[in-house]
Amino acid sequence: MDSALTAAIASKKYHPAFLHINYGQRTEKRELKAFNDIADYYKVKERLVADISHLKKIGGSSLTDTKIKVSLPDLSNKNIPSSYVPFRNANILAIAVSWAEVIKAERIFIGAVEEDSSGYPDCRKVFFDAYNNMIKYGTKKDFNIKIETPLIHLSKKDIVLKSLRLKSPLHLTWSCYKNNDVACGECDSCALRLRGFLRAGKSDPIKYKKIINFKL
Amino acid sequence: MDSALTAAIASKKYHPAFLHINYGQRTEKRELKAFNDIADYYKVKERLVADISHLKKIGGSSLTDTKIKVSLPDLSNKNIPSSYVPFRNANILAIAVSWAEVIKAERIFIGAVEEDSSGYPDCRKVFFDAYNNMIKYGTKKDFNIKIETPLIHLSKKDIVLKSLRLKSPLHLTWSCYKNNDVACGECDSCALRLRGFLRAGKSDPIKYKKIINFKL
Repeated sequence: MDSALTAAIASKKYHPAFLHINYGQRTEKRELKAFNDIADYYKVKERLVADISHLKKIGGSSLTDTKIKVSLPDLSNKNIPSSYVPFRNANILAIAVSWAEVIKAERIFIGAVEEDSSGYPDCRKVFFDAYNNMIKYGTKKDFNIKIETPLIHLSKKDIVLKSLRLKSPLHLTWSCYKNNDVACGECDSCALRLRGFLRAGKSDPIKYKKIINFKL
Repeated sequence: MDSALTAAIASKKYHPAFLHINYGQRTEKRELKAFNDIADYYKVKERLVADISHLKKIGGSSLTDTKIKVSLPDLSNKNIPSSYVPFRNANILAIAVSWAEVIKAERIFIGAVEEDSSGYPDCRKVFFDAYNNMIKYGTKKDFNIKIETPLIHLSKKDIVLKSLRLKSPLHLTWSCYKNNDVACGECDSCALRLRGFLRAGKSDPIKYKKIINFKL
């Protein structure tokens, strides 16, 4: 949902190329399908799918290690949940910068959300600022790529409302961390998404196995 | 040669784990053999081999794209040669940090050399400093990993002399960018290595197909 809205925002100003990452996560196949569906929706020809299965080898996360349980949602944004994949976004962004340098892209857009999120350290504005600074020193002088995070300070409610306003293809997106067929409705990611729709007073076009009750 | 010496230095203070990266480079197989030989030499059990073949898909370098010629050496350190793999070290370090966070490593050692090098932007001290700063914001609070670059200000001559002093297994190392059997002796990497041995007044234990003449 966040990536799709980010694509909608980026497409208004730029001609987009789409990058997708398989990192051995449980829902790898379903996410790849969503990637291609959304790329088709935006008629994006330039696509790159990168496999970083070493994140699975490295483990340490319930997303990539099936022996670790996907924790029940804690939406307090205080504790880092078991789904945290160590330094995942730094790995993803490194690939994006390498690609950007070769295809001469001007901007890298990523749909990271800080406030209304799971509290992952690599989803914070300070992290992306430090990353942008590091890029300056790690790439050729004439290459001025910058990461943009248009959703960073939005709540999931804002994201739902903005997605509807910009006609982002919500029905093609996938958020569930656990299932590949019908979204579980109870992992961190489903919980954050469902709460966002609830707070926005809108209904989610995708189906869920189970819908848990939230305190609004 | 640089990685092996870095391992020698790191081993004096820490119990090392070894990370190797296949990135679709021409000499992938030979480098992997060197990695395992050197890991055996240091009796390192904890090893991780990561494949980031998307760097080959991305291309833009003579190391990963066989259609781009490996340029003849320009040791002026002024022009970035065709062997430059865009943002390679940022990709490698991201994997190292992810792994370090899971195995709770204290330090990440990398054998980058700034002065007497090919002029890659991601081999400079300023880049590693910016990377260390970015790590602080992208990882968990209680995780204080830092990258160390003990060779960063050494010349290749110093590296040869220090390798001999610390009994680094020079005979097991591989530097050539081009060949998998006998080192070519004329790519950037062979040229830098050979000039280092020449300046140190020592002879290189590995064999070369051809040895070019340098102005010392």
